[in-house]
Amino acid sequence: MEYESDYNLLKEKIDACITEGSVQNAKNIFDSYHSVDIDEVLEDLDSADLQYFLFMLDPEEIANLIENAEEELQVMMAGFYSTKELIDIFSYMTNADVADLLGLLPTIKRKDILNYMKKSESNILKMILSYDDDSAAGIMTTEFISLKQSLTVREALLKIKEIAPTTEIIESIFITDNLHRLQGIVDLREILVAPGFKPLADLVETHPFFVYADQDQEEASNLIYKYDLKYLPVVNKNEAILGVITSDDIIDVMEEEHNEDILAIGGVSKDEEFDSNFFHSVKSRLPWLVINLFTAFMASAVVSMFEDTISQVVALAAAMPIVTGMGGNAGNQALSIVLTSLARDEISLEEDLPLVLKEIGLGIFDGAVIGFFAGVVLYLKYQNVYLGLIIFAAMILNMVIAGIVGFLLPLLFDKLKIDPAISSPIFLTTFTDVCGFFIFLGLASTLLPKLL
Amino acid sequence: MEYESDYNLLKEKIDACITEGSVQNAKNIFDSYHSVDIDEVLEDLDSADLQYFLFMLDPEEIANLIENAEEELQVMMAGFYSTKELIDIFSYMTNADVADLLGLLPTIKRKDILNYMKKSESNILKMILSYDDDSAAGIMTTEFISLKQSLTVREALLKIKEIAPTTEIIESIFITDNLHRLQGIVDLREILVAPGFKPLADLVETHPFFVYADQDQEEASNLIYKYDLKYLPVVNKNEAILGVITSDDIIDVMEEEHNEDILAIGGVSKDEEFDSNFFHSVKSRLPWLVINLFTAFMASAVVSMFEDTISQVVALAAAMPIVTGMGGNAGNQALSIVLTSLARDEISLEEDLPLVLKEIGLGIFDGAVIGFFAGVVLYLKYQNVYLGLIIFAAMILNMVIAGIVGFLLPLLFDKLKIDPAISSPIFLTTFTDVCGFFIFLGLASTLLPKLL
Repeated sequence: MEYESDYNLLKEKIDACITEGSVQNAKNIFDSYHSVDIDEVLEDLDSADLQYFLFMLDPEEIANLIENAEEELQVMMAGFYSTKELIDIFSYMTNADVADLLGLLPTIKRKDILNYMKKSESNILKMILSYDDDSAAGIMTTEFISLKQSLTVREALLKIKEIAPTTEIIESIFITDNLHRLQGIVDLREILVAPGFKPLADLVETHPFFVYADQDQEEASNLIYKYDLKYLPVVNKNEAILGVITSDDIIDVMEEEHNEDILAIGGVSKDEEFDSNFFHSVKSRLPWLVINLFTAFMASAVVSMFEDTISQVVALAAAMPIVTGMGGNAGNQALSIVLTSLARDEISLEEDLPLVLKEIGLGIFDGAVIGFFAGVVLYLKYQNVYLGLIIFAAMILNMVIAGIVGFLLPLLFDKLKIDPAISSPIFLTTFTDVCGFFIFLGLASTLLPKLL
Repeated sequence: MEYESDYNLLKEKIDACITEGSVQNAKNIFDSYHSVDIDEVLEDLDSADLQYFLFMLDPEEIANLIENAEEELQVMMAGFYSTKELIDIFSYMTNADVADLLGLLPTIKRKDILNYMKKSESNILKMILSYDDDSAAGIMTTEFISLKQSLTVREALLKIKEIAPTTEIIESIFITDNLHRLQGIVDLREILVAPGFKPLADLVETHPFFVYADQDQEEASNLIYKYDLKYLPVVNKNEAILGVITSDDIIDVMEEEHNEDILAIGGVSKDEEFDSNFFHSVKSRLPWLVINLFTAFMASAVVSMFEDTISQVVALAAAMPIVTGMGGNAGNQALSIVLTSLARDEISLEEDLPLVLKEIGLGIFDGAVIGFFAGVVLYLKYQNVYLGLIIFAAMILNMVIAGIVGFLLPLLFDKLKIDPAISSPIFLTTFTDVCGFFIFLGLASTLLPKLL
């Protein structure tokens, strides 16, 4: 990679530029660094320095910085400008980005901006803002070319040349009927090589995929991933085309959803970053730990029930975490397989229920292998064959339970529209701990005379 | 979504089509279903039926099915055709897809195909095949338009019309010098509206990002994600452009890497699917369980050291899993934050080491809160204030260790080029279990007289 950005060096340059107040230096920085990297430095400036630095840039450069900034920085930057200045800056941004920013501003400011805008602009923005942030409409681009199917190639080319400078998608033209309903797509290269008199209708390729504007962005993302789509049109209730989702629009969605999954499995709220401040991290993690503490008490209460047994055969205390720990591990294996399949929309409770039999089989087989090793070790250590047999049996039973719960729980949560990545791990551990202790210590109590 | 595919209905149609041998029905199926869905049914056909169904399709349709099939099905399909037929089918596929398939075929067959191809085709394929599957070259497209900067707009338009039908990327033209080194990019729409006599050199926008062909696909994917790039050129050692990675090329890479992470955290090998067969799943999961069994024994051995103490105060057996369990939870929180940041290349051992202090602080704070609750409950249950104090202190200490290990371990593995998602969880649990038991039971042994 030729382009390289060093935070400290860039920070020095920006600091120097602010101290000297040199517009030329500001332009140079902008020419040599990507705005993503400039934003990283700007995040750490105080408000006065930030405003002074931005003061040296033109609206297009400011638009660039705003588009790539984190939400907090975006709002701060927007705060420096009057309604009129903001509308000027917005003219260099995509509608999707403008709508995102407007959604972050105070209602009064947002209304003021929309009132001052050209009607044609504000109508599109109001339409986008009327949908949920996480909806298909929230990530679509509205800068695409749509043409009526009755146009000829020559007429189409003239229109395309006119619209081209302000459009984001140029390589495909979306063809509609008079009610703006999508009839299909024409590839720009087809138009380039076709004779001028041909009607567009002759070149149209049908495109059976679309999503409604209020569908979840994850559904749109899954469709694009599964069918390797270049474009996914977004339509309103009357099936008129409102926008288009492209494969680069879903990259952020995918990254977001995946990170949410990993963080959820780890028991952290989705907005925590590695460099979040201390109190943000406490807020993100402590509630989850408190919930976990309750389940830990449940497991502990099960052990308490058998204190009498343990006091007579204290080896049980050393052996019991093996049963619960291994159950947790086996359950997490089943869980992680189901979670990745759910994320790709490949598995469902109705269709794949019979696969739980495989999990039961795996629990028996893996449990028997692991239980056999554990049993042999315990037998050798304590010279009691019953202790070995008990851990063997408990291991199989607990791993079967772990497999069933690890497999069914996320499917059940998904069916109930509860995020399976957030809810499954904690319940799974509760099951494997409570059942593991109960089965192992219960068997030991029953066979207590043999263990003494 | 208008398009909808039902597996069972489609299977019936395909079965009927095979029974009747109706070419017209085969075409109809192809017109109404996406090849991704047809492939899902074809996977479950036996070889003879599959071959018979494919026999009714033309090379373009077969190419379509091969492109979207899983590797196993791809190889099976390719096996039905002679070298000459395959080359015909390949003409409807992208070079990247052909190279992927060739990589799966036996060496003799591959060489034979490359020998029979046009030199211009086989040279590109050989170049792609010379790089690793997981490299930038492995996912790039070679169907892009590159033009010399000395051409005029008029000359460029003629060339573009000529190349357009066979290219994948049309909306941007890559401009090179005489040694094929990238000079920048020109937007097709700029060419469409510029006067014909203008040289392309006047329209070029610099594009400072590129990757070398042998760089890892994940690095390419991270660059495109971070800088929101539409294209990432891929160059050889002499910086001549070989191909271009687009945002839709990295969708599969992102999906793959993320699934690998989730499966690794769960302790499952990356090629297991929810519908893998029994023995595949055993092979994927059992080795990991065996490794976990060893660490479970280590933790168990620590408990054994204190059997004497436990036999005198059996309440310790019920309380100790709370300390280890909560330590594991806290450690996983730190781990999941670091893993997501590592996946985005945002964190490193050198630059972010000081953040371990925050983790220590969190361990102290969260540990104190959780330890306080746990201590009060134990005190109320067993009416012994020392038991409460011991779990309070042990909880803080174990959570500090959990935070440090959960934070540093993945960074350390990453630095050593070991996959942190695979290796960290098992070591982390070992630490939190061994330390948790040792601290809690050790404190209890020291203060034993107070507990009796």
